[in-house]
Parts: sequence; structure tokens; C-alpha cells
Amino acid sequence: MAHGHDIQQWLKQHRMKGIKLLQRLVQEPSRRGQEGKAQALMAETCRELGLSIDLWEIGDEKLRNHPNFYCDRTDFSGNPNLVAVKKGKGGGKSLILNGHIDVVPEGNLTDWQEDPFSGMVQDGKVFGRGTTDMKGGTVSLILALEAIISLEIELKGDVIFQSVIEEESGGAGTLAAVLRGYHADGAIIPEPTNMKLFPLQQGSMWFRLTIKGKSAHGGTRYEGVNAIELAMDVINEITKLEKERNDMLNHPLYKTIPIPIPINIGKISSGEWPSSVPDTAVIEGRFGIAPAETMEAAERALEDCIARLNTGNEWFQAKPIELELFGARWLPGNLELNHPLMQTISESFLAVKGKQPVIEAAPWGTDGGYLSNIGGIPVVVFGPGKTELAHDADEYIEIDKVIEAAEIIALSIINWCGTAEPAVYEGGTENET
Amino acid sequence: MAHGHDIQQWLKQHRMKGIKLLQRLVQEPSRRGQEGKAQALMAETCRELGLSIDLWEIGDEKLRNHPNFYCDRTDFSGNPNLVAVKKGKGGGKSLILNGHIDVVPEGNLTDWQEDPFSGMVQDGKVFGRGTTDMKGGTVSLILALEAIISLEIELKGDVIFQSVIEEESGGAGTLAAVLRGYHADGAIIPEPTNMKLFPLQQGSMWFRLTIKGKSAHGGTRYEGVNAIELAMDVINEITKLEKERNDMLNHPLYKTIPIPIPINIGKISSGEWPSSVPDTAVIEGRFGIAPAETMEAAERALEDCIARLNTGNEWFQAKPIELELFGARWLPGNLELNHPLMQTISESFLAVKGKQPVIEAAPWGTDGGYLSNIGGIPVVVFGPGKTELAHDADEYIEIDKVIEAAEIIALSIINWCGTAEPAVYEGGTENET
Repeated sequence: MAHGHDIQQWLKQHRMKGIKLLQRLVQEPSRRGQEGKAQALMAETCRELGLSIDLWEIGDEKLRNHPNFYCDRTDFSGNPNLVAVKKGKGGGKSLILNGHIDVVPEGNLTDWQEDPFSGMVQDGKVFGRGTTDMKGGTVSLILALEAIISLEIELKGDVIFQSVIEEESGGAGTLAAVLRGYHADGAIIPEPTNMKLFPLQQGSMWFRLTIKGKSAHGGTRYEGVNAIELAMDVINEITKLEKERNDMLNHPLYKTIPIPIPINIGKISSGEWPSSVPDTAVIEGRFGIAPAETMEAAERALEDCIARLNTGNEWFQAKPIELELFGARWLPGNLELNHPLMQTISESFLAVKGKQPVIEAAPWGTDGGYLSNIGGIPVVVFGPGKTELAHDADEYIEIDKVIEAAEIIALSIINWCGTAEPAVYEGGTENET
Repeated sequence: MAHGHDIQQWLKQHRMKGIKLLQRLVQEPSRRGQEGKAQALMAETCRELGLSIDLWEIGDEKLRNHPNFYCDRTDFSGNPNLVAVKKGKGGGKSLILNGHIDVVPEGNLTDWQEDPFSGMVQDGKVFGRGTTDMKGGTVSLILALEAIISLEIELKGDVIFQSVIEEESGGAGTLAAVLRGYHADGAIIPEPTNMKLFPLQQGSMWFRLTIKGKSAHGGTRYEGVNAIELAMDVINEITKLEKERNDMLNHPLYKTIPIPIPINIGKISSGEWPSSVPDTAVIEGRFGIAPAETMEAAERALEDCIARLNTGNEWFQAKPIELELFGARWLPGNLELNHPLMQTISESFLAVKGKQPVIEAAPWGTDGGYLSNIGGIPVVVFGPGKTELAHDADEYIEIDKVIEAAEIIALSIINWCGTAEPAVYEGGTENET
């Protein structure tokens, strides 16, 4: 594989530059609504690489009226989306490199050993909110691109780098990029997969159930109808639905997963006084969507379950359970395991790591759902972070993994987009010794 | 029954005085911590009747160290307890007349058609917070006493009128009166029984269960342990305990009650995010205590149930359910149906109403629990208000009922405490025509 050794050497020499970029990115707390400064840093980085920059505030009518726009945010001013394009010579396949700039809130400060936005480097790791999810992955993308550009490798196909907002809240940033016309023959999203390849992603939607009982004094509780007891019946019914849905799945990647598409009961709240029979219970949860399922089919499955409860029970006939689908949603992703993009990344992985990558189904949705379902773009999720560190205190990423992912992605770009010369790799197992 | 006609005539003539006293009492919003002004009015009323007044701020060490002091209030200054005694000639039985001055909060003002503290009179009713629970009953007590005093009926036994604070929050006011040494051969509490006699009262205590699960992402919910699911198991176990406890009861007054001593699950709260497996669930409830049961036995029953869960289940062995008994408690009451005090009140009722009273078990606790369990005083709860109006918006009491209850209580005082002349009633069924 030509360029392999050069890429590896370049990354070795510019490791410090990658660490510094990641530190500066972490030091901009790009929580929802505060993405502007981190995006400015990304835009400046892309400009220095000579990419053509498209920096725009999302939220136009086309986006807001899209049937798959699941977003409660109305103000996007000052916090733009970024797309930066490196045009190819022509005749090659194009590739989107997609990373989200938004991070989830840091949570309770006392849970952190250090300032969540310090970007501290220790023991070969960069610490801070967003390191693993997913500024570390974004730095891998930038390093891969910079290596190719610095080494003057001429690509045939276009590379379309995207730094989007709103992924953590449902993906309006990527949807906006799709609707703006950015398309490609494939896409890589370096979300934290722990260096595994995720061709499938579980989608999800949130639901809220409001269940009505009848109040009474606790001393005569038989005169009321306890909303908590009703909620328990509803939860049991939802658990049955979960079993039915999962029994129908038979994808090979799901053979060892206990519940491939779970329905999670995440929240319950009912009652105000120990001595009163509560008259209302509210349940909130997350409904897992199968990779090959449409959002609409998933909605129907949940609606039908609640409708069955509402017709099959005298109490619910009088006081029907209310179902709301609210908040964020993530479309599923479903790429064939033998898709050429999978082959390209797997070969690059083998060249760099000297072994085949682990291939799994993602238990969560990503912006890949919009790219594939709305944009029609084949997506593989592959990145250097660890899933289990995402959204947690003391989040960190291993610097070696950021560099390795950059190398694998650089080779994938070269081989997917194509170059004048064939690639020969010369330093394959150097990292394994 | 001597004096019967005189009492009835006196009450007819002084009906307006009773209404005015009730209005003035309602116009003092004696919420918890604000009982002072209403107590001053009660003290002044008792002083005018020539009773000997004991007005004191509760909260001494003896009270606070009592094992049955279930109270989170520390400041009682400016809001005294009142006991006012009418000494008898000697040789008769003594009687406590106990009413609480505190009222529950008025709740949402928009639920009320009028100012909750207006004391408005309309259609033969006085409206406002505390009318039915239980300032109306207290006015019946005062009218009964005033009639006897005005008619110069000489009693042999003492009458001990008590206007206490803190009933709605567990009864520290009555406990303080017991510990101060006030004792009698019987007691009447005119809580809102809708003119029924309640010789039994269900006691109650509050409990809180904290159940620990294990957090995980909803997409891999099988990696966590859902605290809501655990809570459902715990609730099912508590429902079994409720059934066992109620199956053991065989008191005749409970024959038609579906669940004589319910365990009410009043509150549940778990989870913070639809997409996360919740790691903690908190349940709060009210544990009904049988009339003949001790508080300690009830505590043990609940503790044993939770201990069984904690030992019988591997998860709970590692993460035991935490049980707290918190907040207010009401001791149960358990008078024999043929107790002489029951007979006295029943006979007075028959004389006034021309029919036998309805006898039931109270589904809630009263200060009678302290009088009987701690003071060893036989207690009957009997009053003019309607249970179902207590604690509700647009609370009211029927003036006719206040006057009728006063008449029945006056006759009960006369017959219980004894007089020089035997009683012959002359105007028995006048109210029934």
C-alpha cells in the first residue's frame, strides 16, 4: 500500500500537533448552544489546510419542515455548522468524514477529578468532556487529511469534512448538511467504537406515557385507582412488546446480544403525598429501532401496543393512556457487512494493525442515520474513543488510539477516493511491537 | 332525659353565636406554625365561660424524648396548646373534649370559589378551610359546654376541653397534653365523621424505600439493572404483605371494608433520562395500622418484609433496600363496641335524632391514638363534619349539623359526668319532623 509508511511517519512527527488541537478543542466547552468557539477553531484549522469552507447557521424552513427534524432548539445564531471540502482530481469515489462538535453537559463537577474542560494530558491520555465523544475522533479526521495534504497525495474523489452541531440532541446539524446538498459515495463517522467497525446502528426515539388513575385517601385506597399500579401493568405490556420485537430479529451481528433493540423505561414519576392514592403517573423511555426498520414502523409498533391497552381494559377505555413521542430521535443505520466501504476500512485496519477489525452493531444511533436514511450515503462508524467513557465523568481518550485511527482513516481515504499511484504499505506492524 | 329540652332551646336561641364563633375561627388561618391567633380566640372564649385556662408552648424535653414523638417541628413559640377545665362537684366520671386548631394548607387558590378564610355563610353552611376539619366540631364542643354552664347544670365529673396544635402533622399537641398529666375517664373528638360513631381508628405511619439498581445506556439496558423494575418487584411483595395483614383481621366493623388496613404506595420517583437505565428508585407510602396493633408491631411487620426481600434475592443481598420510617404517624384507636362511653353517646344520639347512630371504623388516625394508647383514655370520634370535604377546596360544614352535634355532646357530657337530678328528655324528635 503506497503512502502507508509516509503517513505513519508523518503522524509520528506531528503527534504533538494533534494533541494540541485536541486540547484546544476540549478547552472550548461546546455544550449545546455554545458550539461557536469550537467551530471557529475547526474552521480556522480547515482553512489552513486549504479546504473550501462552508460555515452557516442552520434552521431554515427546509430543515424545520423536514418530517425527520426532531429538534426543540429554535436559536442557532452564533453556532454554525461547518463543511470543508477538498476537491479531488475527478474519477474517484467521494467520502464524507463526519464529526460532531457538541458535547453533553459535564454533569456534577464533584464527580470529576479535574476541570472537565482542562484538556489535561497524563499517561498518554487527554482528559476532558468530549475527548472520547468525539473531539478525539474529529482530530483523527483532521490529522488524516493533513497527512494526505502535507504529503501531496493527489486524490481522485472529493473529501467532505463535516463538523456538525446537535448530534447529542438528535442530529439536526447533519440533517441540515444533507439538505444543503452534501452527498458522497460513503461516509466515516469516528464516534467512540473502541476501534471496532459498526456497519449497523440501533436507532431510537423517546416516548412519554401519561397514565391516569383516581385519587383517594390512602386509608381507603380501594376507593381510588392507583396510577403506579396501572403504570406497572403498562410496563409489563411494554416488556412483552420488547420481547416480540427482538424475537423477530435474526441478523448475524445480533446473535450474541441479549436484547438487540431494547425498550428502556428510563423514568417514572407519580404521586405527591404518601397518604394519597396517586392519580397520575408519567413514564419516559427510549424505544430502540432495528437497523432495517423505518422510524414510522417503530412509531406504529408502539402506538399499536398502547392502543391495544386502551381498548382491552375497561379503565383505560374511560381514561386512555396518552402517548407522546418527544425530544430527540436517531435514525438507525444498516449497511451490508460486505459493502465496499466496509472492505476498504477493514483492509486499512489490517494494514495498520496487522489483524482484522472487530465488526459489531452499535447499540446507539449516530448522525449516520441521517446520512444513510435521508442522504442515501453508505456509513461506517469507526473511531478511537471508548463507548463506556462517553457522557461520563473523567472522560478521556488514549492519544495512541487517535493516531492509529488517523492512520487507518488516511489509508481508507486514499484507497476509497483513489490516487494516481497504487498504494503499498511498508510499515504495517510497527505499532504492534 | 332532664335538660334535653332546655339544651335544645338554648342551642336554638344561641345558634347565631355559634355561627359567629365558627366564622371568626375560620378567619384566623391557623396553618401549621400560625395557630397563635386562633388559639387566643379559643382561650378568650373559654375564659368567658369561666373555665380555668392552661395555655402553654409545647416542646419540652419530656415531649421531645418520648418514643412516640413523631414530629419534625422544632419551633412552637407563639403557638400554644390550650386546655380549659370545668371542675365538677365530684363523684362523677370525667370527660376530655378534644379538638385540633391546626388546619391543612388551603392548596391552590384557583380551586376555591371564595377566599378559603372568608368564613362565608350561604345556604345554611359555613365555608372555608378548617370548617369541617375541625373548627365546626370544636364549636359544637364550646356550644355544648356553654349550654350546660348557662343552664346552670351542675356536673359531678370534670370536663377537660382541649384545643391542640399539630394534629394534622402527627399529634404532638395532644401527646403534650397527655404528658402534662391531663387524664379522664373518656374522650370525645369531633373530627368529621358525618355524625357517625368511630370507636376504632386505623393508625398509620409513613415509609420510604430506596432501591438501588445499576445504571447503563438504554441501548444496552441488559448491562444495567433497572431500579424501576426492582421497585415493581418490591411493590408486588408489599401488596402480598397487605393481603396477609388484612386476611388476619376479623373485627365485625371490618366485614364490609375491602381493605381495612391498606398499605398505600403514594409516590414513586426514579430516573433522570429516557435513554438511561435508572440506578435508584424511591417509593413513599402509608402503612395502615390495625386498631388493636401497636406501632412497634406494625414497624416490625414492614421491617420483616423488607428484610425477607434483602436476604431472599441475590441483587438485594449486595445492594439492600433501605427502609426509612419518616414524617408523621398516627397511633390507632380501639374501643370495645359496648364500652359505656359508646352507650352514652349512642343514647344521646337516639334521644336527639330518634334513631340509632351508624357505627364504623375510621380509615384514618386521629389524636385519639395518643389519648388511648399513651393516655389510656377510652375515645370515641364523633363529629358534625363530612370526611370527604376535609382537606379539599370549598370545604364547608352544615350549621344544622354543628348544632345537632352540640346537642348530642351536651347530653353525653351530662350523662357521662353525672348531675344531681336524673335526665328526662322531652323534645326528642323535634328535629325529625
